[in-house]
Amino acid sequence: MGKLDETLQRIGTLDVEAMALASERQDRLTKPQGALGVLEKISIRVAGIFGEATPEPGAKTVIVMAADHGVVAEGVSLYPAEVTAQMVANFIAGGAAINVLSKHVGAKVTVVDVGVASDLAGEGLLIRKVAPGTANMAKGPAMSREQAVAAIEAGIEVAEREMSRGARFLATGDMGIGNTTAASAITACISGLDPLEVTGRGTGIDDAGLELKRRVIAQALSVNRPDKNDALDVLSKVGGLEIAGIAGVILAAAAARRPVVIDGFISAAGALIAAGLHPGAPAFMIASHLSVERGHGVILERLGLRPIIHAEMRLGEGTGAALAFSFIDAALKVLREMATFDEAGVSGPEEALNNA
Amino acid sequence: MGKLDETLQRIGTLDVEAMALASERQDRLTKPQGALGVLEKISIRVAGIFGEATPEPGAKTVIVMAADHGVVAEGVSLYPAEVTAQMVANFIAGGAAINVLSKHVGAKVTVVDVGVASDLAGEGLLIRKVAPGTANMAKGPAMSREQAVAAIEAGIEVAEREMSRGARFLATGDMGIGNTTAASAITACISGLDPLEVTGRGTGIDDAGLELKRRVIAQALSVNRPDKNDALDVLSKVGGLEIAGIAGVILAAAAARRPVVIDGFISAAGALIAAGLHPGAPAFMIASHLSVERGHGVILERLGLRPIIHAEMRLGEGTGAALAFSFIDAALKVLREMATFDEAGVSGPEEALNNA
Repeated sequence: MGKLDETLQRIGTLDVEAMALASERQDRLTKPQGALGVLEKISIRVAGIFGEATPEPGAKTVIVMAADHGVVAEGVSLYPAEVTAQMVANFIAGGAAINVLSKHVGAKVTVVDVGVASDLAGEGLLIRKVAPGTANMAKGPAMSREQAVAAIEAGIEVAEREMSRGARFLATGDMGIGNTTAASAITACISGLDPLEVTGRGTGIDDAGLELKRRVIAQALSVNRPDKNDALDVLSKVGGLEIAGIAGVILAAAAARRPVVIDGFISAAGALIAAGLHPGAPAFMIASHLSVERGHGVILERLGLRPIIHAEMRLGEGTGAALAFSFIDAALKVLREMATFDEAGVSGPEEALNNA
Repeated sequence: MGKLDETLQRIGTLDVEAMALASERQDRLTKPQGALGVLEKISIRVAGIFGEATPEPGAKTVIVMAADHGVVAEGVSLYPAEVTAQMVANFIAGGAAINVLSKHVGAKVTVVDVGVASDLAGEGLLIRKVAPGTANMAKGPAMSREQAVAAIEAGIEVAEREMSRGARFLATGDMGIGNTTAASAITACISGLDPLEVTGRGTGIDDAGLELKRRVIAQALSVNRPDKNDALDVLSKVGGLEIAGIAGVILAAAAARRPVVIDGFISAAGALIAAGLHPGAPAFMIASHLSVERGHGVILERLGLRPIIHAEMRLGEGTGAALAFSFIDAALKVLREMATFDEAGVSGPEEALNNA
């Protein structure tokens, strides 16, 4: 059995007993029940993920998967393909948004070349190159099924490596010029929606560029005819190597019972593939922000995830996920550190008093 | 001239030159222009507030204004009025949500008794009691115009005290059983909307309680007939002492050119009063989260503010504002620390290349 199948077999369910304990404690803390909204919900779900009633915050790693896309030849992006490699160098040098935001929240950044077209090296860069970019999906499959599995398994291996080195919380990030085209194609295929409804401006294309992008996606779907009920088929035909790697990171986190924070549209496409490979995966995912990219909200709704941050972001890299780490820590600290009504000598609701 | 008038006279406008410099720098950072959305906008506005092209993060204080409400006699809240004082004791002891969240983001909490019904004391509690709670606004004015001014001036004085002790960023918070009734009355009066459209469940009242609350608000507006174009009239007739204090904190921050982060519905009602007293005040406000309370979104829209956090919170205390501090720091660090395209050797958009 391969690493992917072995990982899928290990994915379990949330610990309902730990969740019940966390929920009971939330209701005894000095605030009206439910008044901290999503913070409370996150703390309860993280309790269920770890199987601990009051889980501690801990070490965090953002895994940024980088790869190139053959479909860039169709003119779908505002930026040249070389930018993928240049931005990976920027990540390694510490100058990108993901570096600044990860440092801000105390997270480590691990960058993985799972399919960049040029050869890269640098401290902190993990080379797990499955291919030097995908083929042009407008002309045929982006990659073979074997390549898709290899890229997922690269993600699993890197996530396991980070967890073995202490990461208690993972987040996904991406870099790949052209990858909103792949993410839109995956979303259109699996949701059954028209590409029109799930395609956005990516790095900032104009109306003509957007129309071209939608036509290219429609062409890729018509040329490849991916089977929406076979996530590996969708991923290999119209996906990307970094999207596969992200799916692998998510599956590895779920198998190890660790929360995994989903960044923007590209990460969500990886999450959609992960959910297609194992319906239990979304229970381990925490949504971070709602991107400007239209397809992002479509995926989050399908996965039953609710983004906390609404900040019109559309950068990727893991930037939204990094910001969300601050909330997740806050949620866990509320559960662990707030006083209960009894401890603080605060009266409960009048109804409760009257019933006493 | 009193402290309030003197403060209003000092409120200026944003520094457009600093904003232009910040905006230019954002466009040279290694990301598509605008891709960090609201983070970029916040960094540019904070530049305009401080009059610095790349403002530094710095010391933060959440000022929590506490006061009681005579209207609680009408049965509008699920909790007894004593809870105001009990929660203030909880703030002082460090056991409340605002303590946990402020500590998480590195902010100080300053609690002010501007009108709690019982006598309180404790380290870190500032006593600026204008009255032992408001009168029942369903029967007559909540307070006199002089009391409203005194409570605003208490807020100004406390904010100036915190800034003189180093606070570079302020946030507003509240505690006061019954205060969503006052905030809803203020919002209904100033927006001209029916109380039905701006009244929520507060700490968690049921349908019958909500209906009662709406009737009480309608009665308070009909008994007092506040003049919507006179913010002091609205504040004194259907407001609260903590809401007045919050308005004072906001005006003092604006006068001193410091960003002030607005928490939830109660703080927004204070912001609405501050904006009524000086139309230049909202330029210095940063919205934090969007509350479950219906009136909150109504106020933010009127003030032209956009909340970042959508987390179904409805606690007050300054909890949403504390969480937002993490974003504001992140926004300023992005502006200061990210590499530019030139520094990182990253190519810009193809169009720019083609035009070169």
